[in-house]
Amino acid sequence: MSTFRSIEWLDEGIVRMLDQRKLPIETVYNDYENYTDLAQAIKDMVTRGAPAIAIAASYGLAITAVRSQATNVDALNSELATAMATLRASRPTAVNLFWAMDRMEEIINNPKFDSVTALKDAVLAEAHAIAEEDVETNKSIGRNAMPLVPEGATIIHHCNTGSLATMDYGTALGIIRMAHEQGKNVFALLDETRPRLQGGRLSAYELKEQGVPFKVIVDGASGHFMRRYGVDLCVVGADRVAANGDTANKIGTYNLAVVAHENGVPFYVAAPTTTIDMATKHGDEIEIEERHASEITHVRECQITPDDVEVGNPAFDITPAKYITAVITEKGVVYPPFEEGLAKLMGSEI
Amino acid sequence: MSTFRSIEWLDEGIVRMLDQRKLPIETVYNDYENYTDLAQAIKDMVTRGAPAIAIAASYGLAITAVRSQATNVDALNSELATAMATLRASRPTAVNLFWAMDRMEEIINNPKFDSVTALKDAVLAEAHAIAEEDVETNKSIGRNAMPLVPEGATIIHHCNTGSLATMDYGTALGIIRMAHEQGKNVFALLDETRPRLQGGRLSAYELKEQGVPFKVIVDGASGHFMRRYGVDLCVVGADRVAANGDTANKIGTYNLAVVAHENGVPFYVAAPTTTIDMATKHGDEIEIEERHASEITHVRECQITPDDVEVGNPAFDITPAKYITAVITEKGVVYPPFEEGLAKLMGSEI
Repeated sequence: MSTFRSIEWLDEGIVRMLDQRKLPIETVYNDYENYTDLAQAIKDMVTRGAPAIAIAASYGLAITAVRSQATNVDALNSELATAMATLRASRPTAVNLFWAMDRMEEIINNPKFDSVTALKDAVLAEAHAIAEEDVETNKSIGRNAMPLVPEGATIIHHCNTGSLATMDYGTALGIIRMAHEQGKNVFALLDETRPRLQGGRLSAYELKEQGVPFKVIVDGASGHFMRRYGVDLCVVGADRVAANGDTANKIGTYNLAVVAHENGVPFYVAAPTTTIDMATKHGDEIEIEERHASEITHVRECQITPDDVEVGNPAFDITPAKYITAVITEKGVVYPPFEEGLAKLMGSEI
Repeated sequence: MSTFRSIEWLDEGIVRMLDQRKLPIETVYNDYENYTDLAQAIKDMVTRGAPAIAIAASYGLAITAVRSQATNVDALNSELATAMATLRASRPTAVNLFWAMDRMEEIINNPKFDSVTALKDAVLAEAHAIAEEDVETNKSIGRNAMPLVPEGATIIHHCNTGSLATMDYGTALGIIRMAHEQGKNVFALLDETRPRLQGGRLSAYELKEQGVPFKVIVDGASGHFMRRYGVDLCVVGADRVAANGDTANKIGTYNLAVVAHENGVPFYVAAPTTTIDMATKHGDEIEIEERHASEITHVRECQITPDDVEVGNPAFDITPAKYITAVITEKGVVYPPFEEGLAKLMGSEI
């Protein structure tokens, strides 16, 4: 386990989240007692990372359930539906959020839970299940990835996909962690990942804590390191993987993938199957969130640009499937052609 | 002319330089009265950009000359040689510095200047000539580039190559400026250019002043903009162009060039012929300066990373010639094969 908890449920009906905007300078935990504040916290990126967003939103419903004053199931259902609509609207790109909300919706609509108490218990239990399964899923991703990580590998990682982006352990960063724990002598090059610097702030924080050797590099330097020093693989997470393998992930992923492809460096996407969206045929159907200009014009309170300049600040980009060597999930590693492989993995017909 | 002067000679034997580290937040001019401080200022990036470094170092010799107490030419020569050694050692990658120092050396060693006064005058006159020629060179680069810039073009630019990086007008950014002045309705996407943010700070400052419409983007977003919105061309400067066309330029240039190539976007290097180094056969011979970790761990006084993390901070990268559509110089536009084209341009045999 990590020494910190990215998201924690307190028995009195509180969701405690580590405020990742302040890391690594300050370690501050915020408590949430209603879904409105929690949805705003997701929007403001107090917590972030596709799996963590799904877990936080699930607990957002759990708060609503356990604190409800409703005296009948219909009234509780209605409150939960309102909360869910708000939580679904918090971030648009990561599909895990919608997967978790769909899963919670099945509980809410299940006539089996025919009393207020039963439904409250079921909602909380489902949120706990989603959170706990995530840790096991991440470890399975790591185990499935181990044969792909050579002894002594230098690995480029983009953004943060570790314990902070998940319930614990992590997806892509979890692979680096597991390789380190297995004594593989890996070395990580962490893209700092502008604009929000999740690599320089959060992944560096995690790997430092775990004792994994690494260097932080600027996003534009990845190709230089491949050419001049050699890199064995790149591994990134995902916010949504389309049925054809196209992958939405943190802005900068596409550039990294193209440069890796050009240098013959394997490029892996590590994600739970909950990130795979078979309803999205290809990447260009995925909505890309545009975020606030201040993410580019400022770093913390330090202004960078002149006043009043325009910025373009897409939070994600789409990496076409042709640049992806394999998608590593908890159920196995999928290679091209992804349409077939992902359909088989997800148990659906092509 | 720009409203600011990046480098200015004052008659009392002072070099005044705009402190580019503080832009755009503060406009501060620093005065230099000896070559030691001026060399340190180049090292610390008070001024930067290959042409500007060459001009600053030339004026560094001029200060030494005009302030010298030497009573004979040999003594003055010796002082100038010492100053030159220090100035040559200030930055390793941009070849313009060495070109300018070689040119000054010819003056210093010219027996024609056989009195202290004559040599002092000649050194100062040569520094002025280097500075003045730079403005005309930049405008010629712009004129040669105009046929390559379509009406309404969206242009990605990396780093800063404008009036701040030169005596005035600029190389790659000068092309955008000239296209705007000619009413071509161009739109610039400025790579912010981590770690030192020359794009977000300096190019944004210049284009805002000139009224050129632009957006600042993070370096990792260039490919996304090419794929999703379409980009017509990329234009960058250079710190050194090898005889085969391989180009050393600000870190992040190589990634941009690869992504442009993959998206069929023309990628132009704009540089004076003084940046072309026929003595360097290919890019991997070029020394890449490694700069201080604090450039990555902090933005201004704001800390990003955890304490005591390792960083990899190469200031430049090498873009292999195969990703470069053309090299635009004041003497003409050179297309592949570059070995032939550059040799012809530079008037040397292959």
